Amino acid sequence: MERKYDVITLGEILLRLSTPINGRLAEGDTLMRHLGGAELNIASEIGQLGLKTAIISKIPDNLLSAFIRNQLNSSRVSENYLISDTGADSRIGIYYYEYGSYPRKPRVVYDRKHSSINSIGIGDVPETMFYNTRLFHTSGITLGLGGNAQSFAIDCIRKFKEQGTLISFDVNYRANLWSGEEARACIESILPYVDIFFCSADTARLTFGKTGTIEEIQKSFCKEYPISVVASTERTVITPKKHDFTSIIYSSRTDRYYREEPYRSIDVVDRIGSGDAYVSGALYGYLKHRDCQKMLEYGNAMAAIKHSVIGDMISTDIEEIDGIIAQHQDTSEFQSEMNR
Amino acid sequence: MERKYDVITLGEILLRLSTPINGRLAEGDTLMRHLGGAELNIASEIGQLGLKTAIISKIPDNLLSAFIRNQLNSSRVSENYLISDTGADSRIGIYYYEYGSYPRKPRVVYDRKHSSINSIGIGDVPETMFYNTRLFHTSGITLGLGGNAQSFAIDCIRKFKEQGTLISFDVNYRANLWSGEEARACIESILPYVDIFFCSADTARLTFGKTGTIEEIQKSFCKEYPISVVASTERTVITPKKHDFTSIIYSSRTDRYYREEPYRSIDVVDRIGSGDAYVSGALYGYLKHRDCQKMLEYGNAMAAIKHSVIGDMISTDIEEIDGIIAQHQDTSEFQSEMNR
Amino acid sequence: MERKYDVITLGEILLRLSTPINGRLAEGDTLMRHLGGAELNIASEIGQLGLKTAIISKIPDNLLSAFIRNQLNSSRVSENYLISDTGADSRIGIYYYEYGSYPRKPRVVYDRKHSSINSIGIGDVPETMFYNTRLFHTSGITLGLGGNAQSFAIDCIRKFKEQGTLISFDVNYRANLWSGEEARACIESILPYVDIFFCSADTARLTFGKTGTIEEIQKSFCKEYPISVVASTERTVITPKKHDFTSIIYSSRTDRYYREEPYRSIDVVDRIGSGDAYVSGALYGYLKHRDCQKMLEYGNAMAAIKHSVIGDMISTDIEEIDGIIAQHQDTSEFQSEMNR
Amino acid sequence: MERKYDVITLGEILLRLSTPINGRLAEGDTLMRHLGGAELNIASEIGQLGLKTAIISKIPDNLLSAFIRNQLNSSRVSENYLISDTGADSRIGIYYYEYGSYPRKPRVVYDRKHSSINSIGIGDVPETMFYNTRLFHTSGITLGLGGNAQSFAIDCIRKFKEQGTLISFDVNYRANLWSGEEARACIESILPYVDIFFCSADTARLTFGKTGTIEEIQKSFCKEYPISVVASTERTVITPKKHDFTSIIYSSRTDRYYREEPYRSIDVVDRIGSGDAYVSGALYGYLKHRDCQKMLEYGNAMAAIKHSVIGDMISTDIEEIDGIIAQHQDTSEFQSEMNR
Amino acid sequence: MERKYDVITLGEILLRLSTPINGRLAEGDTLMRHLGGAELNIASEIGQLGLKTAIISKIPDNLLSAFIRNQLNSSRVSENYLISDTGADSRIGIYYYEYGSYPRKPRVVYDRKHSSINSIGIGDVPETMFYNTRLFHTSGITLGLGGNAQSFAIDCIRKFKEQGTLISFDVNYRANLWSGEEARACIESILPYVDIFFCSADTARLTFGKTGTIEEIQKSFCKEYPISVVASTERTVITPKKHDFTSIIYSSRTDRYYREEPYRSIDVVDRIGSGDAYVSGALYGYLKHRDCQKMLEYGNAMAAIKHSVIGDMISTDIEEIDGIIAQHQDTSEFQSEMNR
Amino acid sequence: MERKYDVITLGEILLRLSTPINGRLAEGDTLMRHLGGAELNIASEIGQLGLKTAIISKIPDNLLSAFIRNQLNSSRVSENYLISDTGADSRIGIYYYEYGSYPRKPRVVYDRKHSSINSIGIGDVPETMFYNTRLFHTSGITLGLGGNAQSFAIDCIRKFKEQGTLISFDVNYRANLWSGEEARACIESILPYVDIFFCSADTARLTFGKTGTIEEIQKSFCKEYPISVVASTERTVITPKKHDFTSIIYSSRTDRYYREEPYRSIDVVDRIGSGDAYVSGALYGYLKHRDCQKMLEYGNAMAAIKHSVIGDMISTDIEEIDGIIAQHQDTSEFQSEMNR
Repeated sequence: MERKYDVITLGEILLRLSTPINGRLAEGDTLMRHLGGAELNIASEIGQLGLKTAIISKIPDNLLSAFIRNQLNSSRVSENYLISDTGADSRIGIYYYEYGSYPRKPRVVYDRKHSSINSIGIGDVPETMFYNTRLFHTSGITLGLGGNAQSFAIDCIRKFKEQGTLISFDVNYRANLWSGEEARACIESILPYVDIFFCSADTARLTFGKTGTIEEIQKSFCKEYPISVVASTERTVITPKKHDFTSIIYSSRTDRYYREEPYRSIDVVDRIGSGDAYVSGALYGYLKHRDCQKMLEYGNAMAAIKHSVIGDMISTDIEEIDGIIAQHQDTSEFQSEMNR
Repeated sequence: MERKYDVITLGEILLRLSTPINGRLAEGDTLMRHLGGAELNIASEIGQLGLKTAIISKIPDNLLSAFIRNQLNSSRVSENYLISDTGADSRIGIYYYEYGSYPRKPRVVYDRKHSSINSIGIGDVPETMFYNTRLFHTSGITLGLGGNAQSFAIDCIRKFKEQGTLISFDVNYRANLWSGEEARACIESILPYVDIFFCSADTARLTFGKTGTIEEIQKSFCKEYPISVVASTERTVITPKKHDFTSIIYSSRTDRYYREEPYRSIDVVDRIGSGDAYVSGALYGYLKHRDCQKMLEYGNAMAAIKHSVIGDMISTDIEEIDGIIAQHQDTSEFQSEMNR
Repeated sequence: MERKYDVITLGEILLRLSTPINGRLAEGDTLMRHLGGAELNIASEIGQLGLKTAIISKIPDNLLSAFIRNQLNSSRVSENYLISDTGADSRIGIYYYEYGSYPRKPRVVYDRKHSSINSIGIGDVPETMFYNTRLFHTSGITLGLGGNAQSFAIDCIRKFKEQGTLISFDVNYRANLWSGEEARACIESILPYVDIFFCSADTARLTFGKTGTIEEIQKSFCKEYPISVVASTERTVITPKKHDFTSIIYSSRTDRYYREEPYRSIDVVDRIGSGDAYVSGALYGYLKHRDCQKMLEYGNAMAAIKHSVIGDMISTDIEEIDGIIAQHQDTSEFQSEMNR
Repeated sequence: MERKYDVITLGEILLRLSTPINGRLAEGDTLMRHLGGAELNIASEIGQLGLKTAIISKIPDNLLSAFIRNQLNSSRVSENYLISDTGADSRIGIYYYEYGSYPRKPRVVYDRKHSSINSIGIGDVPETMFYNTRLFHTSGITLGLGGNAQSFAIDCIRKFKEQGTLISFDVNYRANLWSGEEARACIESILPYVDIFFCSADTARLTFGKTGTIEEIQKSFCKEYPISVVASTERTVITPKKHDFTSIIYSSRTDRYYREEPYRSIDVVDRIGSGDAYVSGALYGYLKHRDCQKMLEYGNAMAAIKHSVIGDMISTDIEEIDGIIAQHQDTSEFQSEMNR
Repeated sequence: MERKYDVITLGEILLRLSTPINGRLAEGDTLMRHLGGAELNIASEIGQLGLKTAIISKIPDNLLSAFIRNQLNSSRVSENYLISDTGADSRIGIYYYEYGSYPRKPRVVYDRKHSSINSIGIGDVPETMFYNTRLFHTSGITLGLGGNAQSFAIDCIRKFKEQGTLISFDVNYRANLWSGEEARACIESILPYVDIFFCSADTARLTFGKTGTIEEIQKSFCKEYPISVVASTERTVITPKKHDFTSIIYSSRTDRYYREEPYRSIDVVDRIGSGDAYVSGALYGYLKHRDCQKMLEYGNAMAAIKHSVIGDMISTDIEEIDGIIAQHQDTSEFQSEMNR
Repeated sequence: MERKYDVITLGEILLRLSTPINGRLAEGDTLMRHLGGAELNIASEIGQLGLKTAIISKIPDNLLSAFIRNQLNSSRVSENYLISDTGADSRIGIYYYEYGSYPRKPRVVYDRKHSSINSIGIGDVPETMFYNTRLFHTSGITLGLGGNAQSFAIDCIRKFKEQGTLISFDVNYRANLWSGEEARACIESILPYVDIFFCSADTARLTFGKTGTIEEIQKSFCKEYPISVVASTERTVITPKKHDFTSIIYSSRTDRYYREEPYRSIDVVDRIGSGDAYVSGALYGYLKHRDCQKMLEYGNAMAAIKHSVIGDMISTDIEEIDGIIAQHQDTSEFQSEMNR
């Protein structure tokens, strides 16, 4: 029996309201409206790269839902598992974003409490969903919501796993959602189900108490849990508007580490969502090519290009990303500055 | 002992996020940001006309509070009784607005549940506040929030009244906040305290079961309760973008009705807040001139001009409003089209 | 065997570049970008109302195609029959639009020659397409392109008809594409295949030499050809920014005329595409309810609301349109001005 | 000897800073920048219609002069007699403009004192200038500036007249520049030189003490002074956004009155400059066709279309204006709504 | 007797009209509108940090005054000493600003002659004003205006000093206002009254003929005059869009120099007003903490953050500035990139 | 006999439609509209520097032509040889542009096939044109269009040369127009007529098979052909938003090489057109000063400043460019950051 989707993600869909670049939350008449949310970003970006994706989420049944549904369709994400919350108390979570310029850091204000996803339950989705995808992805943000959302996420992980679905998980630790101890306890309870694990060196040390090099940390996760692949991004902030970015992947099956040269001096227009773009590229590369080097290359390229556009997620296609990778690997001296 | 403020209002401050004119909530990257809320509009507009005002409200202690506080100060509204909600659950209520064009009606989506005002309590304000103003105003919207906000509002009405403060109340019935029966019961419980009562003929009939002409209705309120003044707006929708507007006021003290010719063919750019602008003008006229005809003229002029500007409240000053009134009363044939 | 689509349309997809409202083509740094094209508008609007639609068209394989494909998906139009033109000579047709204000008429400049649709051929589409829809729609604009596009359209009409598909045709005469004689000859050659025919009284008289009342004209088409339904829009231009709009439909099966009261004093923000919106609503009503009165009501409502938004097509959903119809039919005195 | 220019005008060039439509001078971060000034508008519009024009004015020699000079060239107005003020005290006059919506009138704030034109002198222009045009135009605004500008204007009128140049004058009374008595005395002193005189009935009555019908008034001017043609605009303000407009012209040579049907229900987007557009059209018609009926038709058409665009002057060409006239005179029933 | 204000400043309020970033004064339809003026910037920024401030200035009594007054109130600056100029000749000074990009320098055009402040006189302000503040600040710009403004400023310095008010003065030399010799003579005449003196090394050398190191220069001012504190900013232009910034302060009381590490690689969005922001922070730190090290830290932080926002002055609050300082002093390796 | 123009160029005028900075062609409602085209850029920029210029081109006779003609006049480029294409098939070529941010390169989509210039013929221009200029310039883009445009360009080169006109040619190789072999053959056929030759080292090597240093390459062209001057730009891409730029010129007459220090760390806002700006400056310097060092300095300055503005061409004047050169040559330590 063929599975209809390549990837199903689970997570909250947020309205992102940002000031214009150089603007401030304390002044100005205009806000930019985008959608955000780690798992939405990932479903949307993988959908644009050409795999079939869906998102499990819950949104209010009001005029804003058309905005959300149109964008999902535009990115080829199925709305089959998007649950409509018709309760009087339904709402979409929001985050406000102000861009920074050194020495002003970017700033975020969350208003996501009481949002519709917090009432999600296993009865909201059809049982057939769990048979219907090659890979399921969620993150520590969804678990960190606690309550119904957390229970539902853990249920999903178990039920998808039972159907032989690959389980992908990104730690994505947010201190404003839960404490490090809460996060560690909860995530350790689901790690036995996880196949692909995204965790940076910093998070591994701060949240899971790991020590040693990133290579040692990655291997230790695979020893403790039946994890196949651990991917860790590596970012160097040269200035707030210039970053270097690469990653390292460890595969327990091949017992090898995968690496490539960093993307250097990336122009940081909007850094939000670059971690999600990394997951998107990595999962695409893994599912499409079943090769950790490709996983690394697509992950790095997606993360790198994400920095150059405004909004949580990039609008792109596979041709553009293949071009970015080719250009990154091109060591010849002469490169055109422009594609024309 | 002199009272520091002429008017203190109590009500929720809302963030208003509207599409650009002709835009739709289902599409578009940009939203306009304003502040709204009936009692904020009134405090702000009376402040601009030159009386001293303050607002009692509760807002989250985050980056958005600077936006709110700057605007209050810009309108000369004191932030002395603006309570900062430092709870983790604090939030500012929001409403989304889409402008209409016939046959598309304007549409509003509320996201005001769980907002900071719902945790307001008598302990949040200093006891001295109740000695400190000539007039206190709130509306059925604040009562309709229920819970803490309702109890607090009723407490305020009583405590201000005890200090000899004028009590002004606008029914402002909102079906999405409470039922007609709930509204009637609650409002009738506070009417014994009310001096100045704003209620349209439609609301009087639908909510209070009144019958007869508007004149009969107004007088009946004054017979049942110790109300001094009843003011009722009268709007004729010629087309969604052309309205006529006037009002009728009854004073139980003089036992007279006050009227004037409607403002005809008002250009409706943004109709939201015109009722609040009426209250602003009326209270200004009443407090400044102690004369119901002036109350009527300022109320009508403020309401009329409000339709011509975007946002919940008008930015104006007393010179402009006096000019509008003079122009409205000018019966000479020749009027310049432009002020230069 | 179930048919996958309810409606497949055939036509050119155009880039619409318009000045900001009140702007002029001769000046200004900014142009608004939309998509247009009669048959795209129709597929998109029927898709939004909830039926399954696809479009047959041909577009260049360059960076603009992502813009087009994203929008199709956003409107739930399948891109299965959207042909990619990889030729060096490929291009997307354009039209430039300047809004008018009396006495300045709106103005259009076309730049659609040599566009990719002109190289379309029967080999570009799979044979299975012709088995796959309940209704096929195209218009006189596609025929008026001449050459390959015309031959292809005629082939499609025949092949869809052979599979028992309903054939819908809108005359949509454009003098800048062909002469009245050319149009008449070509259209008369396909009328024997047409089931649902859209033609206004003016066009019937000027292009087909019809005389008499609109009722006589409609019936005469059904006598000459095996047409089931003739629909004719009726517009009254009160001022360029205020129109009345209704339509009349004749069904040869019931031998009845269907009518309703006009939408009066419609606010004309952007009149382009209102005829297409009529066809969208009418085909939706016909396919969904198999009832010419519903066909009329949905057609009129879609056309009326289209005038109120910028762009060739409206972004809407069935709830909004049902609300417009209910409001139009509501004869009670009291109607709220706003949906909240 | 051929004259190089058809029309030379004399007047101040002003920077016009306006709020966005619906915006207010008291708030908002953005102002729209245009150029204005009655005589600039006229030179520019006649230049666009195809005659050769120049303007005599004086502007500061700073970065803003490039903005002015580029726009003059764009409109085909020669900058040959545009004098550069290199003084430390040089400045460009400004007016601020706020659009109105009933009952808010449009409002203007002038900041034109001490501007460069006030230092203009006969030594600033070459003697050859006075031999170089068929017609010279200035207005009461230039005279009303007083001081150097007034003396210079009177000198110009005399010197141009000596060379057989037609003298055109528009009263354009501005109460904020001078009193009615000052205006009357000064203008009467130059009327002996005037050939073409623009004066509305209201101005004739208020400023020149005329009585009787507009026909009697027009003829009386020609009796008192050697004026050839008197043109008077007639505007009816139906609503602030709907005007009717026409004019009446009297020619003393033919002793006839020229009239046509008003342009009715003009959409008033921006009324400023419509009087200047009338002068532009009238002078174009007079110079091009030497016919007062053409003068009237071009004047009315230019004035009518000006209302529909933002800014002091319209950007147009002779094809568009001929089209407006043809459409206005077309009495047939069927007119297309759109030019395509 | 308590003084009502912490700081009163004296200076001209200017309208700042700037092109959009990347735009040019010679083209474009839109200008951004801000307020500017060194002493306004300082009063406004100190007001936002939480001290009580007022500004002495004179502005025209027209529609623009509401824009100014609203902004003053928004920043908590009292308008008690803002004088309304009702003269026919009243005007607000303007400066036009074009942003630069290397090798294009930013460019400024002033149009501030004849502005209302030039008619200011001692009779415009109440005598009580001089008893009412802890500190008075003005700058060389106000003295450089000459005439009434200069005399008034010198009178103010003397009268405030007589009341035991701290006198703060920033040289702020502008070559387009006066010559170096004029500046030197005038400033030296008021230095005997100055307590806090802001003067950069370059200005000290060019204008006051100082030699030696900045430390020697600072100390020499304190030897010649009874100055308590000399503060000198130090800016390194790495590229036009990357600056380093710090300062050095000398206190004659402690006979110590105060320094800290520069803010390095500041993103320069808009450099205008960073010197004023330095003064704001320094005066805030001095008045609040009576400590020259705090004075230095607040001065540097305010100057650094000012570069990152558009406009003459920053909108901020004390929490943000304390955060900037803490981040600047944080020498730990791990710093979050974002505040969330 | 005096020649009326200093420079006549021949080339296609293109509409440039670009996304806002940071925007993408695949999304967004707004496009920026500019004009472009190498030879237009050059005529326009030389016109702004003060020499008399005209352009030979062919554009459609529709509403867009006013946009083009106004801009030409604004830049002081004569439209005397701008041919109006009244054919039904007329169109203006377009290119779409998306700005890049590393690692996203800028991207261009051309839609220039079938444009009006492709029907240009020698009969479209008056014979007198060839007597009327000091210098004629065209580029490899015009030749690369092939067909009529190519033949016409070659005819023009011959006919201008016959009249003793200087012939200037910029290789400007575009791989999407023709192959390297085609380009080489065609360009070599016109090199015998060329006086001033613009060719970079890369192009010389790739297209003309040159080897050796740039100095050797330049000299070799002058040996093979009667070329007087060869100019080659030298760009170093430090990052996509920071370039160094200079050039080298060889004069066969003086047998000398001309060089200067590069402009370093240029802020690259928009790189398009910087090569054309180089040609503009170089030709201006050559014609005005008859000196290759001046040619070099003006070329480099124009190219450097072009990077800092949006659009294909810079709006400037000779004062600004002389200022840029002076600043570039100023080796003193102290330079003001701002021009005020």
